[in-house]
Amino acid sequence: MKITSTANPRVKDLVRLRNRRARNETGLFIVEGFREIRRAIDHKIVIRELWVCPELFLGEQEGELVERSGAEIVEASVEPFRKIAYRDRPEGLLAVCEQFDTTLEHLRVSDTPLVLVVEAIEKPGNLGTMIRTATAANADAVIVADQTTDVFNPNVVRASIGTIFATPIAVCSSDDAIAWLQHKNIPICAATPNAETSIWDARIDGALVVGAEQYGLSEQMLDAADVKVRIPMPGDDEIDSLNAATSASILLFEALRQRS
Amino acid sequence: MKITSTANPRVKDLVRLRNRRARNETGLFIVEGFREIRRAIDHKIVIRELWVCPELFLGEQEGELVERSGAEIVEASVEPFRKIAYRDRPEGLLAVCEQFDTTLEHLRVSDTPLVLVVEAIEKPGNLGTMIRTATAANADAVIVADQTTDVFNPNVVRASIGTIFATPIAVCSSDDAIAWLQHKNIPICAATPNAETSIWDARIDGALVVGAEQYGLSEQMLDAADVKVRIPMPGDDEIDSLNAATSASILLFEALRQRS
Repeated sequence: MKITSTANPRVKDLVRLRNRRARNETGLFIVEGFREIRRAIDHKIVIRELWVCPELFLGEQEGELVERSGAEIVEASVEPFRKIAYRDRPEGLLAVCEQFDTTLEHLRVSDTPLVLVVEAIEKPGNLGTMIRTATAANADAVIVADQTTDVFNPNVVRASIGTIFATPIAVCSSDDAIAWLQHKNIPICAATPNAETSIWDARIDGALVVGAEQYGLSEQMLDAADVKVRIPMPGDDEIDSLNAATSASILLFEALRQRS
Repeated sequence: MKITSTANPRVKDLVRLRNRRARNETGLFIVEGFREIRRAIDHKIVIRELWVCPELFLGEQEGELVERSGAEIVEASVEPFRKIAYRDRPEGLLAVCEQFDTTLEHLRVSDTPLVLVVEAIEKPGNLGTMIRTATAANADAVIVADQTTDVFNPNVVRASIGTIFATPIAVCSSDDAIAWLQHKNIPICAATPNAETSIWDARIDGALVVGAEQYGLSEQMLDAADVKVRIPMPGDDEIDSLNAATSASILLFEALRQRS
């Protein structure tokens, strides 16, 4: 079928998935762009519908990707596609996917686990960037504790450039995260500006915990931490001098350095 | 004076400053929010107008800040203020400032210089985050080479949380940046995924150069580099696995670690 009108009810249903409530009710979410959809297919995410607008294709590999998707193909003309697209410059590919398992129970960790734990991160772009960096650092998993951001938010998917499909993700309360980490004997290394020990003087490994910029880590997370470290900031002593994604990247790559 | 209508011509003039052309023509730019305006005042940025909407104030220190600003105060009611505000949740403070000097000539560096050089960064939020991180790391300066992003873009100011006023910034061509660094005897350390040497096996210091995610560094910058390093990424071998701001933060804090 080909959709030519922005008033088509399927267009409206799709636009609705930008809202969290509609995502929760349907169990679906949106993935846009070639790179992101390729990663979704590679990691066996179930694609219900793949919307295509060949006029907007940028490259020559789109056809192959469409064939591999195993999804219902919905062709749209430029106008309705621009309406469903989340990006300013759409690439003519948008997938409606089934939400995947984000329970703690499905996480598997290696013998030398490296897990990024983020507490109460508000900005979807920040969360997506952290997942991207954790993937580059080969972290076993990302745990989103006390979620205020929906990991299926389109901006999380976009900032993660689809790495959200590559690295296992769990969403849970901070208490459940702590219990799980302790059960797995994964030491908790919490970054907090008030710590005395610098990241260069401590063992950075196990579960690396980063909190929201404005409020820092929860009491229970600080109590549960085996090690508390601060990122030295010679240039500015304000608590919020690094954004949460930046803090996470510095911690992850310091852990890699210490292992190398 | 108090502005009560969104149709007021001063409201329109101010909204126009979101466009680069209007900023270039007037030599002005917008700074929004308590923290950001406080930093502008602390660093002696000239504030032409300070727009206030007391109904939207969040705290109790706004009055003091308004007094310190030395600017013409323009009071606005909620409706016109929401129109000029750039943020979703405005805090009732917005300053119209004069653009400051961003020539290479005004930069001063310490005896042990640490400079962040960013080439052709497209996203304003990324550039602002890099300036924020460079400030936390106490870098001497940030050089924006081959600008595609205007440093006076409101999203740069916002993501920098006003650190753009704390750390000297220069905007110039890559050739001029290279000539200036060589004249100052500052070694150039370029991050590129194709380098053989890891950041942990090289001296990370001097001018740390990071390029755009999609295109990497320019030929002339790679040719001029005294050291080329790569950020090891065990988890993913795609070139774009770290965003540019993440790469910058890893380099800057590795430089700090090596100095510590």
